[in-house]
Amino acid sequence: MIEVGILGATGLVGQRFVEILVNHPWFKIASVAASERSANKKYASLAKWRLNSPVPESVAELMVVTPEPKKVGDVSLVFSALPSSVAGPIEERFAKDGYIVVSNAASHRMEADVPILNPEANSNHIQLIEEQRRRRGWDGAILTNPNCTTAILTLSLKPLMDRFGITRVIVSTMQALSGAGYPGVASLDIVDNVIPFIAREEEKVETETRKILGNIGTPAEFKVSASCHRVATLDGHLEAVFVELKERVEVEDVIEAMKKFKGEPQELNLPTAPKFPLIVRLEQDRPQPRYDRMEERGMSVVVGRVRKDPALNGVKYLALGHNTIRGAAGCAVLIAELLKVKGYLS
Amino acid sequence: MIEVGILGATGLVGQRFVEILVNHPWFKIASVAASERSANKKYASLAKWRLNSPVPESVAELMVVTPEPKKVGDVSLVFSALPSSVAGPIEERFAKDGYIVVSNAASHRMEADVPILNPEANSNHIQLIEEQRRRRGWDGAILTNPNCTTAILTLSLKPLMDRFGITRVIVSTMQALSGAGYPGVASLDIVDNVIPFIAREEEKVETETRKILGNIGTPAEFKVSASCHRVATLDGHLEAVFVELKERVEVEDVIEAMKKFKGEPQELNLPTAPKFPLIVRLEQDRPQPRYDRMEERGMSVVVGRVRKDPALNGVKYLALGHNTIRGAAGCAVLIAELLKVKGYLS
Amino acid sequence: MIEVGILGATGLVGQRFVEILVNHPWFKIASVAASERSANKKYASLAKWRLNSPVPESVAELMVVTPEPKKVGDVSLVFSALPSSVAGPIEERFAKDGYIVVSNAASHRMEADVPILNPEANSNHIQLIEEQRRRRGWDGAILTNPNCTTAILTLSLKPLMDRFGITRVIVSTMQALSGAGYPGVASLDIVDNVIPFIAREEEKVETETRKILGNIGTPAEFKVSASCHRVATLDGHLEAVFVELKERVEVEDVIEAMKKFKGEPQELNLPTAPKFPLIVRLEQDRPQPRYDRMEERGMSVVVGRVRKDPALNGVKYLALGHNTIRGAAGCAVLIAELLKVKGYLS
Amino acid sequence: MIEVGILGATGLVGQRFVEILVNHPWFKIASVAASERSANKKYASLAKWRLNSPVPESVAELMVVTPEPKKVGDVSLVFSALPSSVAGPIEERFAKDGYIVVSNAASHRMEADVPILNPEANSNHIQLIEEQRRRRGWDGAILTNPNCTTAILTLSLKPLMDRFGITRVIVSTMQALSGAGYPGVASLDIVDNVIPFIAREEEKVETETRKILGNIGTPAEFKVSASCHRVATLDGHLEAVFVELKERVEVEDVIEAMKKFKGEPQELNLPTAPKFPLIVRLEQDRPQPRYDRMEERGMSVVVGRVRKDPALNGVKYLALGHNTIRGAAGCAVLIAELLKVKGYLS
Repeated sequence: MIEVGILGATGLVGQRFVEILVNHPWFKIASVAASERSANKKYASLAKWRLNSPVPESVAELMVVTPEPKKVGDVSLVFSALPSSVAGPIEERFAKDGYIVVSNAASHRMEADVPILNPEANSNHIQLIEEQRRRRGWDGAILTNPNCTTAILTLSLKPLMDRFGITRVIVSTMQALSGAGYPGVASLDIVDNVIPFIAREEEKVETETRKILGNIGTPAEFKVSASCHRVATLDGHLEAVFVELKERVEVEDVIEAMKKFKGEPQELNLPTAPKFPLIVRLEQDRPQPRYDRMEERGMSVVVGRVRKDPALNGVKYLALGHNTIRGAAGCAVLIAELLKVKGYLS
Repeated sequence: MIEVGILGATGLVGQRFVEILVNHPWFKIASVAASERSANKKYASLAKWRLNSPVPESVAELMVVTPEPKKVGDVSLVFSALPSSVAGPIEERFAKDGYIVVSNAASHRMEADVPILNPEANSNHIQLIEEQRRRRGWDGAILTNPNCTTAILTLSLKPLMDRFGITRVIVSTMQALSGAGYPGVASLDIVDNVIPFIAREEEKVETETRKILGNIGTPAEFKVSASCHRVATLDGHLEAVFVELKERVEVEDVIEAMKKFKGEPQELNLPTAPKFPLIVRLEQDRPQPRYDRMEERGMSVVVGRVRKDPALNGVKYLALGHNTIRGAAGCAVLIAELLKVKGYLS
Repeated sequence: MIEVGILGATGLVGQRFVEILVNHPWFKIASVAASERSANKKYASLAKWRLNSPVPESVAELMVVTPEPKKVGDVSLVFSALPSSVAGPIEERFAKDGYIVVSNAASHRMEADVPILNPEANSNHIQLIEEQRRRRGWDGAILTNPNCTTAILTLSLKPLMDRFGITRVIVSTMQALSGAGYPGVASLDIVDNVIPFIAREEEKVETETRKILGNIGTPAEFKVSASCHRVATLDGHLEAVFVELKERVEVEDVIEAMKKFKGEPQELNLPTAPKFPLIVRLEQDRPQPRYDRMEERGMSVVVGRVRKDPALNGVKYLALGHNTIRGAAGCAVLIAELLKVKGYLS
Repeated sequence: MIEVGILGATGLVGQRFVEILVNHPWFKIASVAASERSANKKYASLAKWRLNSPVPESVAELMVVTPEPKKVGDVSLVFSALPSSVAGPIEERFAKDGYIVVSNAASHRMEADVPILNPEANSNHIQLIEEQRRRRGWDGAILTNPNCTTAILTLSLKPLMDRFGITRVIVSTMQALSGAGYPGVASLDIVDNVIPFIAREEEKVETETRKILGNIGTPAEFKVSASCHRVATLDGHLEAVFVELKERVEVEDVIEAMKKFKGEPQELNLPTAPKFPLIVRLEQDRPQPRYDRMEERGMSVVVGRVRKDPALNGVKYLALGHNTIRGAAGCAVLIAELLKVKGYLS
């Protein structure tokens, strides 16, 4: 078993890391870290556990340490669920000290030598590690998973880009409350309401999408415009996507391309990989967050209502994914599995 | 006072008609009609009143009649809030019998000689009445207000079209529960959920928008694509709008055009007209349904987050309007006021 | 395997029966019945499936029949999730024809020779079958599970009654939306609202509780008063219970009595029995519907906040149970398991 | 006009004070105070305004000061919406310096010489001011309004106590989110959930109720037991009340006693007094928070479902009141009006 640490282990995404890793066939949680004021207390006493599953016993008793290499100790890899406000320098210190860091924070995502990996979409970007190490003189490395909305979007776009070519993407989101962490959105702000703004979210979707779906060093050429909104769902980001394609297509061809889509995680049969990254529903009223967000343990994106777009040469559809699993902790664990198979973990 | 009737007076939109008309300076509710099984009972005993205001006393005691001309009797105008499934032939019978019908139903909207009026956007279409009467040999006439989503959208588009020219519109909606009527959406379907489908809504938005913003007989040339979704708000449709413009614009110019926008209802100082059809909010997180839907008694559309669009040559913004007021009963009453001022009501 | 049928299989409780029975070690779903207009169609095409699990494949393909003995055919037992408005005569016809009917409907519950069984609380009432058969000349029999609220309440009261004696019970409920079936409560009635009335619910709680916790033929002597309310939760009825006891007690003794409580289903190790019928939480803010309703597959009642009552000689506490599992289908399946072990099923 | 100040003016209850006082016929907001870090900024820039009405212009431009007598300056009375954690000493300083303080904070409520006033229920307690001044040597005075839940409960109990005598009260609440302030309850804690615990709330209800409905210095003799719960409503606390009475009563007599109930505020025709403190609804499903909380500008308590109690000699009913109006700011303003009429304000 490969021992791993979790930085920012007490927050919502940190809890998802714990839940996903606790029974993982390859990884073992050896260390949980959180902010100064949490250190030296038992995990169970700290994390206001917000998942439906109970706190796993093996983690409940772990003592929380501060997010420093010497405290986290001898692990091969750390997952970072630190808030972006503090993640930057902490993650760098770990990478300098030889740790592989797989981060959910936005801090390093747009740096040229840091890959944003959505494994089914761009597993080849993993080789950026070499350049990163060369440039920075690190033994370790920092890899990132995409912003939650971007993770869902890029998975749905990848087969369309490969098969038909994309020239333009417009996406309007209905995002879940868990995306804001805990306590996050005040109940008084969301009962009988929608909040039509999520700080820095649209910029992330617009830039990360092109980096992920481009070649290393060259963003994809198509344009992306996002409008991001918070609605009163607990989990599951729902996205209305409008895609302009290079070719004229039939809806059936788009659906077929999505259904057939597989990536390296499927070929390698990685433990956290869903059997199908995209599940296409044909009912007229799906996907719905409450019913579809847990498809394949929250790792699949569920697409529905694929139809011709009357304003763009292309299609429009709905895409739904679990924001703290596919869009965060689950994606990061998939990256770690890829790293292991590729020989980056010792 | 001009006496009016309300067809379909017991439903949600019917109730809004009652609320708006009960203290109207020009109109007096003389007759309330509903389906066969409701006839001959007092209004108060029938309408499961779902508004926060109490049932107005003067209407509570009215006996409900069936929606037939001889039962509704001698009124100058009937407002129709009938369900589209039955509205068609009933409204025609009234028009044939000499009544002016202002309808919220979709039945006749797309007929060539029936105007869809959103008074600030296309009050000139009112003249279609003449052609309709000539063609159909009617003394009365049928006029319609737009679908709720379209009413909000077209109001926000009108100043952009006039000032900069529009080539393409993409709109993704987050629509309120009241749009589905009562009982409408089951609570089990919407708690912790979004329903990403509203029957026939997208088609209405795509066709009605072009009819309203076009010339009489010629739809506007720009393309429209809509994706419509139901969220857990009580009232107020929120729309994420992406507009491709003919000219290159600055955000400030768009905001200025919206702020200055006025139509004939404002010039004529109609009683139900809002002072400003569009209110532009500059805060980064507005408009929000719960806070902004009742602007100017629910008759204004509140626009926010106007920003450049990185994928289309144009802007994106949010638009919010009260779906059963601006998007239904309020708009219909505004049409009736226009009819009066133009001399169509005796 | 014992073949069973489900009457009213397409509704919400019917769906729970399917979900619980589909992998049952003793029972096999051989027949699904629903109203006339559903007959002769496949189950999957009829049931608007409202559970998070998918429709089980083995049931999806079953043809739905009408709820008549000759259509349901040769099964040993039928579970009835029929609406109370029609359940009465249908269930009698089955019992007359030799079927054992385990019913979730209220129709027969208060008849003197029909037991209401909440197995951990009154499994001995099962012997009423003999009297019922004698009186009615039936080969079959009708047994009922309690109303959902009553099922949860009586489980929490049973150890207190046995150990300390009860003189008075007051209960105020916060009940879930699924208790009203589907479509059930309109979303417009419950967003930002509470409905302080559930038809016939309080009467059921007040009479059924005393029948279940009494001796056969003699209701328990204590008094019960209920006030029942609907709140915006999907599943899980939460009940604030105030109990006047015969003896003076300490809170610790009450908690201990609850924790130790087991009934015949636990002794017999029935497949659907929870390990502990009552789980006592010591945190100050539990039980909560979303986190606690699925304890032991929804079969346990979770109790919390046990504290002395300053107005009654006794305690007050919160009790939470899953209304369509412990309070309906799960309880009925537990009854069927008891019937099998006791030799009533052939 | 009497000039008044508001301490804690930026919070939710502070905002209600602003809303109620801004058009008050007797009082004028001369000063708004909040914590250190808010001082010297304009009110509009500080208060995250959470009411549906807009921020009143006359207050928007006021500079916020710290809650100190010399900063608040020359006003006759200060309303305190300070959090209980800091209210105690600040309010005392104002009282010492000669200010009349009407406080919504719990800090001083249970002190023997401080009245808790719910004017229709115990306006005579106002005379405690004299004793308070004598004991403490103050020129000013501290008066408090009840905890929100208690304010609603005591209003409903008062006519029953006077007419029939009360021996026992049990109350189970479904309280609104605004009762926890802003940001207050996290949305992740309340969507599809109920929180069955509100810190210190039950103790307040149990002690304050008896103080208010007792004689000065002698709590009422009846016993009170409360169980308090938070549900997903924005405003309006709903309470299920079970009352044991000294006399045997008919439901009609109870309803009549409630309907006829008036207090000194009605006799004195105080500007904020509702015409009827209690409104009794006879429909079987009222009161409902969304529809009934704003009765008489939120100052009336709406009672419904009055019925005989089968476990206590008495009745059970539902009572609903607006928690931040009747249960907080509105009640405090009513107290201030009483003070003026009684000659305590100069």
